[in-house]
Amino acid sequence: MIFEIAAIEVKQGLEEEFERRVAEALGLFCRAKGYRSLSLERSIEAPSRYLLMVGWDNIDDHLVGFRESQDFQAWRALVGHLFAAPPRVEHVVTVLNEKEAAGHPV
Amino acid sequence: MIFEIAAIEVKQGLEEEFERRVAEALGLFCRAKGYRSLSLERSIEAPSRYLLMVGWDNIDDHLVGFRESQDFQAWRALVGHLFAAPPRVEHVVTVLNEKEAAGHPV
Repeated sequence: MIFEIAAIEVKQGLEEEFERRVAEALGLFCRAKGYRSLSLERSIEAPSRYLLMVGWDNIDDHLVGFRESQDFQAWRALVGHLFAAPPRVEHVVTVLNEKEAAGHPV
Repeated sequence: MIFEIAAIEVKQGLEEEFERRVAEALGLFCRAKGYRSLSLERSIEAPSRYLLMVGWDNIDDHLVGFRESQDFQAWRALVGHLFAAPPRVEHVVTVLNEKEAAGHPV
């Protein structure tokens, strides 16, 4: 499993609309092949900045399966006009997770 | 609850040592007031880059309680010499979490 992390700067004043539209778009992600989880994190220091974290079985499920799908076009149609700049996307693998090690899944 | 997200660039070739030392340092975080969880994520695109994500009850548990503690000094003594640059730290709050909404905690 890997995580896509997209850093998204939203146009000022449109943060609530962005959050509402991400919630509306959940189904587009949930039905994608290899989808595992999604969370949206909002920066405290810069409240127009968000991190969208999506868990996928592997990186191709994101970069090929989802990105080349019509659902990706629908996702961008929902939120793309709210972006202040192109999102910066990276992928990570978890190498240590204390919640699991301690047996306290959150 | 909030998350501290520290972006850490590790000196090339010292990634395994860094991961080992973060595992050794877990106890320093776990006993801190307000500590909730810790995960270490490694970038796929830039394998010397890590995201350390620590869950805290609130931002002061990190910036005051932990940062001003002797355990923070011990943490930096364990890993600080492996940093290629000062970490960039931000704090986020979760505004949407599909795992919870769907009733499938991971």
